[in-house]
Amino acid sequence: MYTARVLERLLRPDEADLCLVNRENYWVYQPMLPEVISGSIGLMDVVCPIRRLCPRTNLVMREVEEIDLRNKVVTVSPGFRPRQKKIPYDYLVIALGEVTNFYGMPGMLENAMPFRTLADAIALRNHVIHVLEEADVEEDADLRRKLLTFVVGGGGFSGVEVIAELNNFVTEVKQNYLKLRNEQVRCVLVHSRGRILPEMADPLALFAQKILKKRGVEIILNDRLVAATSEKAILKSGLEVPSKTIVSTVPSASPVVLQGLNCAKEKGSLLVNSRLELVGFEGQVWALGDCASIKTASGSVVPPTAQHATREAATCALNITAAMRGGEARGFAFEGLGTLGSLGHGSAVAQIFGVKISGWLAWILWRTIYLMKIPGIKSKIRIQMDWLVHLLFPPDLSQTGTWQDSAIKNQHFEPGDIVFHQGDLGDSVYVIEKGECEVVKQEDGVERTVATLRGGNYFGEMAVLSDVTRNATVRARTAMEVLIIPKDDFNQLRKSVPAFGEVFQELARKRAEER
Amino acid sequence: MYTARVLERLLRPDEADLCLVNRENYWVYQPMLPEVISGSIGLMDVVCPIRRLCPRTNLVMREVEEIDLRNKVVTVSPGFRPRQKKIPYDYLVIALGEVTNFYGMPGMLENAMPFRTLADAIALRNHVIHVLEEADVEEDADLRRKLLTFVVGGGGFSGVEVIAELNNFVTEVKQNYLKLRNEQVRCVLVHSRGRILPEMADPLALFAQKILKKRGVEIILNDRLVAATSEKAILKSGLEVPSKTIVSTVPSASPVVLQGLNCAKEKGSLLVNSRLELVGFEGQVWALGDCASIKTASGSVVPPTAQHATREAATCALNITAAMRGGEARGFAFEGLGTLGSLGHGSAVAQIFGVKISGWLAWILWRTIYLMKIPGIKSKIRIQMDWLVHLLFPPDLSQTGTWQDSAIKNQHFEPGDIVFHQGDLGDSVYVIEKGECEVVKQEDGVERTVATLRGGNYFGEMAVLSDVTRNATVRARTAMEVLIIPKDDFNQLRKSVPAFGEVFQELARKRAEER
Repeated sequence: MYTARVLERLLRPDEADLCLVNRENYWVYQPMLPEVISGSIGLMDVVCPIRRLCPRTNLVMREVEEIDLRNKVVTVSPGFRPRQKKIPYDYLVIALGEVTNFYGMPGMLENAMPFRTLADAIALRNHVIHVLEEADVEEDADLRRKLLTFVVGGGGFSGVEVIAELNNFVTEVKQNYLKLRNEQVRCVLVHSRGRILPEMADPLALFAQKILKKRGVEIILNDRLVAATSEKAILKSGLEVPSKTIVSTVPSASPVVLQGLNCAKEKGSLLVNSRLELVGFEGQVWALGDCASIKTASGSVVPPTAQHATREAATCALNITAAMRGGEARGFAFEGLGTLGSLGHGSAVAQIFGVKISGWLAWILWRTIYLMKIPGIKSKIRIQMDWLVHLLFPPDLSQTGTWQDSAIKNQHFEPGDIVFHQGDLGDSVYVIEKGECEVVKQEDGVERTVATLRGGNYFGEMAVLSDVTRNATVRARTAMEVLIIPKDDFNQLRKSVPAFGEVFQELARKRAEER
Repeated sequence: MYTARVLERLLRPDEADLCLVNRENYWVYQPMLPEVISGSIGLMDVVCPIRRLCPRTNLVMREVEEIDLRNKVVTVSPGFRPRQKKIPYDYLVIALGEVTNFYGMPGMLENAMPFRTLADAIALRNHVIHVLEEADVEEDADLRRKLLTFVVGGGGFSGVEVIAELNNFVTEVKQNYLKLRNEQVRCVLVHSRGRILPEMADPLALFAQKILKKRGVEIILNDRLVAATSEKAILKSGLEVPSKTIVSTVPSASPVVLQGLNCAKEKGSLLVNSRLELVGFEGQVWALGDCASIKTASGSVVPPTAQHATREAATCALNITAAMRGGEARGFAFEGLGTLGSLGHGSAVAQIFGVKISGWLAWILWRTIYLMKIPGIKSKIRIQMDWLVHLLFPPDLSQTGTWQDSAIKNQHFEPGDIVFHQGDLGDSVYVIEKGECEVVKQEDGVERTVATLRGGNYFGEMAVLSDVTRNATVRARTAMEVLIIPKDDFNQLRKSVPAFGEVFQELARKRAEER
């Protein structure tokens, strides 16, 4: 977006057609995203429509599906009509960022929420309000504790700001929940090193840790999230934290479309020269931001922050203009101004031009600098208004999301986990993809294992077929991966594909006979 | 919510436990909901958290699943754990409103968007921005016209305000779409009677019609929506309007949970006496709002508006207090103050104490009165700020929604409709539930029908199984109902339930042989 903005200034309309492919039609002001959780910034005020920021650029709101560097064509995802769209180019800028990648971390994909986009922030906000609402109604003390425990993985800026906002928000709004006022809320930050905020100097990081601990945040150091179920977070040390809310700000990986790209790379990132040209495609393709591995002219590695990315964009736009008009390309030389991180509630840490500042002054600095950096007067005004209202009134706790959870999905269970309890409503049918579980009946207080099921077996169909409650408890014996088919989908498939229904009908008949 | 608020004032904490069951944890200010479409009011500013409005009431954010009037128990939907929750009561107030009901209107459920809740308003806003984005990219002129056509069914207040907002919003923001600036936008309002706004006097309704027409809105009178496909709206007269956006503000029906309720009713609504007591359960159950059939003490029918509903709540709360403490119940006597409807862009129609006002003055009146009626200072301040910003800047066009459309779903096709085109990507598998379609191949410009399929048949599996584009076009011969299984769900089911996969594999083999 920044590259397009600079190109609009540098190039005449008759000189170039500008096209920007982006999954969303807005640009997000990333540093303020955590404030969406508490609603201290309005949901829409942290974003800005790209069409207003780049009025001369053709925006294509689709996903990039393939980049063909040889034939100079970008393929994007289909729209209302299922046809591929191909966009040929003369000059290409790749700025696709990074994605969250839970490869090798069982259950994380299903149960950990990422925190990158506005949609993630809104989903987290709505989820947090949902668990508070449920905790207020729930009578099972165990489940209530899980509902009131919040785990964040990753102690970088993003993770620290998210746990700070979460903790502030939950602590404040629980006063509005009649049955939660005296309940303990548990906010846990997990970080893989000896202290949080690796981007900052020791004293600032320790200051931040102190502030967070004072506010009641638990910090677990030298450990990391490795797995999750719908009931708990599992750390590398073996520690388990029972929780219904797991947020992960790590780990990152290259977007799938770049993984398949046949060009020079360094640790998965696109390798560029100091002029930001993709090695092997100089004068044709540039790469910048988090998806590129960039070194400045002086040889230092460029960190993945906004202040660097915006300056990379300017350099890139200048170099594209030079390539088109003939001229000298320039190297990327920006060395960074400093780092800033907010802890919310009038506290922050800052390290600017070598000076370390913490507390209230750093917070004012944080707000001032970031407000200045937002493009557009409208956003500036709206955010200032939001902050003013937030100063005077308690945070909003309306849940705007439609909590929809009714699609076919995977789930991960750890040994000993309960899939469902005898007496529960039959809301889904399960297919075991990997692992083993046992079916346990409780009669007159005595527990009796009636069957062991393994990969390829189905269960849970009886309660769904006859619309009664579960007649047994199912417990995982080993780590287990299952496919969950919700009742409505199951019944629709059964009606439409008789062979599908017969599998389960037959099974139910057999099980009834065996009883 | 209003009844609980008044009860909190009337009853001492030791006198009663108050419990409110609501699907959402917020209260929506309905008259301002259409302004969410254009974002002239922030997404969150039109709602207010119930926990703040009723601090002493226990809020249960669940659905009401069953009301047992004999045993005095309300059953609500399960939460995180699939167990029913039962809430016993001494006194019950039923205020469940109405729901949209498309019974007997093929394809409406799948393709028409309701406009009742905040979630509906947000979904509509995001959908409208999505079609604009697609129209800007789309090269097929036919599809582009469909994307730029907006149909609203129902010319009551709600429908009129929605079409006015939609038309104003789209007309304004299309200036930001490079390829849409000179395209025609079509906004169509369909109403079943001879003129819109049946709640208002002739001159005001005609004024509203004139204003809307001047702004480019097409008004179709004496007709109504009867069916829809994903490509068009179908009216009773047989007229078809090709469109990708169909909004319906009619028709209404009683919520399912009340349909099964065994008590006195009038045209499906709960029958109450003038003291708002449910007939047959006097002194125990009250009903109010849109789900009740209410007559005032003087015998006039009470219309379903907010000004009446809030006063019904006050009467109901007083009568509950009287029932508990012993005292005289009072009849509902409010006769209405007038009616107000906004047309956006500084215009409205009002009829207050018998005086008819239209245009700019009515609009000021509309804003002033509705602003006064919103509970809470925070909401009042935020909405005034929103209006101020909206006056100074163009509307926001960021799409906040995550456009997810990947669940198993039904779809309706009319005779002649294309299900998919030869050459499209294979993104779903189809099961015919009712009706017939033909499979057509295009070879060297010649069309050849290769098969006719009917209820129980599957199609579309070949392109999905072998990951190629469609090798034929499928066209409906009669009206047709199908189940659509998206590619991802299909592949997951195929892997997990082999019998399911074999059905389609076998079919694909047969079809390949027949070729």
